[in-house]
Amino acid sequence: MKTRIVSALVMVPLLLVVYFGGIPLAAACFLVGLIGVRELFKGFEAMDVHPCYPVAYGALILLYGLHFLFPLEHEYLTGWLVLGVMASAIYIFRINEHKIEDATATMLGIVYVIFFSYHVVMTDMTGEYRILTWMIFITAFVTDICAYFSGYFLGRHKLCPNLSPKKTIEGAVGGVLGTVIVSGIFGAVFLKGMVVHCLLMGLIGSVLSMCGDLTASAFKRKMGIKDYGNLIPGHGGILDRFDSVLFTAPAIYYYIQIVLMR
Amino acid sequence: MKTRIVSALVMVPLLLVVYFGGIPLAAACFLVGLIGVRELFKGFEAMDVHPCYPVAYGALILLYGLHFLFPLEHEYLTGWLVLGVMASAIYIFRINEHKIEDATATMLGIVYVIFFSYHVVMTDMTGEYRILTWMIFITAFVTDICAYFSGYFLGRHKLCPNLSPKKTIEGAVGGVLGTVIVSGIFGAVFLKGMVVHCLLMGLIGSVLSMCGDLTASAFKRKMGIKDYGNLIPGHGGILDRFDSVLFTAPAIYYYIQIVLMR
Repeated sequence: MKTRIVSALVMVPLLLVVYFGGIPLAAACFLVGLIGVRELFKGFEAMDVHPCYPVAYGALILLYGLHFLFPLEHEYLTGWLVLGVMASAIYIFRINEHKIEDATATMLGIVYVIFFSYHVVMTDMTGEYRILTWMIFITAFVTDICAYFSGYFLGRHKLCPNLSPKKTIEGAVGGVLGTVIVSGIFGAVFLKGMVVHCLLMGLIGSVLSMCGDLTASAFKRKMGIKDYGNLIPGHGGILDRFDSVLFTAPAIYYYIQIVLMR
Repeated sequence: MKTRIVSALVMVPLLLVVYFGGIPLAAACFLVGLIGVRELFKGFEAMDVHPCYPVAYGALILLYGLHFLFPLEHEYLTGWLVLGVMASAIYIFRINEHKIEDATATMLGIVYVIFFSYHVVMTDMTGEYRILTWMIFITAFVTDICAYFSGYFLGRHKLCPNLSPKKTIEGAVGGVLGTVIVSGIFGAVFLKGMVVHCLLMGLIGSVLSMCGDLTASAFKRKMGIKDYGNLIPGHGGILDRFDSVLFTAPAIYYYIQIVLMR
C-alpha cells in the first residue's frame, strides 16, 4: 500500500515528461532502457548468466541515434533488431568463456527492455494520435491500482498462486474493469469520437499490463531475486515500476498503427 | 569435400525456387523456418532447455499470413516480433514447469531462424532489385566454397581454433576475395551500373556469411551436438546448410533498403 503511494509520487515527473513529449520523453525512455538493461543483466548474473553490456548499450545508443535521423522508419527498426541479435550471437564466438544463455539474455535485454520501452517514444511520434501516449500509462497504472484495491476488498480466488501468490481473479477483473472505465472517461474528455477505441485500448492494454507484470515476476522468480534494483529505496528498480509499461506501450502503439492509422 | 559436392547438388532445386521467386520461394522459406525451428529446438533439448514449439510455429504461420496480407509493411513486422517475444515470455507463467531459458530459446527460434530466413522473401519483394536475391546465395555459398579451397591449399594460421578448429585465416581471406570477385562478375553480367554495389554487397555478405557459419557452430558446440539434424542423410540438417544464408539474407536486404532504395 505504502509502496504504491510512494511510487505514485515518483510518477509525478513522468507526467511532465509525457506532457512535453519530444526530446524530454525520448531522453527519459533512453534512461529507462539504460538502467533497465543493467537491472535485467544484474538479475541474470544472479543466476550465473553473463549477458554482454557493451552490445546492449551499443544497441541502445544506435536505436536513439536512428530515432533522430530516421524517425518511425520501421525498416531501420527491423534492421536494428537483426543487428542486435547478430552482435549478441557473435559475442559467444569466444566459446570457452561464454554460454549460449549469455547471448540469449543479451538479446532479451535488447528486445524486451530497450525495444519495448522505445514504443513509448514511437507513440509520441504518431502526430495527431500523440495524446494516446497517456493511454500507455493509464492502462499500466490504473490496472495496477484497481487490481490492488479490488483484490484487497473482494479477493477470494487466487489467479496464479505459483507465480504471484497475492494476485486474485477478483483483482484482475477489477483491474480490467477500472481501466476500461478510466480509459472511457479519458476518451470522452480528450478524444470525442474515439471513446470506443479508448475502451478497446483500455481492455487490451489492461490485460497486457498484467501480462507485463507477471512476466517481470516470472523472470525475477527464476533469477531468485525479489526486486530488480533499489533505485527508489525500498521500492525496487526501474523495471519493477515499468514492467507493465513495457507491455502496454507496444499494445497502444500497434493499436494506433494497425487500427487507427489504416 | 564430398559433403560439399552433395550439398551443391541438393542446392539445384533451390536455384529454381530463387529463379521463380514469389509463392514458390515464400513456400520454401516457410519450410526452412518450420524445419529449422524444429532443429534448433531439438538442439536446445539436448542441453535440457525446452522451448515452446506452438509459440514458434504460431509465429511462423502468422508471419507468412501477414506476408500475403500486408507485404513489406515493416510496422507489422515489428509488431509481429513484439508479439512473439511476449508470447514466449507468457509461456513461462507456468513457473514450476518452465525455465527462463525455455522462453529465451523460443525467442531465438522466432528471430534467428524464422525472421532471419524471412529476409529472403523480403528481398524477393523489392521489385527492380529482386534479382539481388541471388546475392544472398552467392555470398553464402561462394564464401563457403572459396574458403574451403583456399584453406585446403594455403591454410597455415588458425582463425578461431576453439570455436571451429579447421578454419584458417587464409581460408577466410580467400572466401572473402572469391566472393567479392564472383559478386563483381554477377554485377557486370546482370546489373550493369551496379558493379560497385555488388562488390560491396559481396564484401559485407561474405564476412556475415562466415559470422553466420560460426554462430551455428557456436550454438551447436554449446548444445553438444555435431549437426542440427539429418535431413540430408550424412550431411546435416536444414540449419547446417543454411546457417550462412540466415546472416547474408538480412545483409543483402538492408543494403537494398538502406543504400539502394533511398
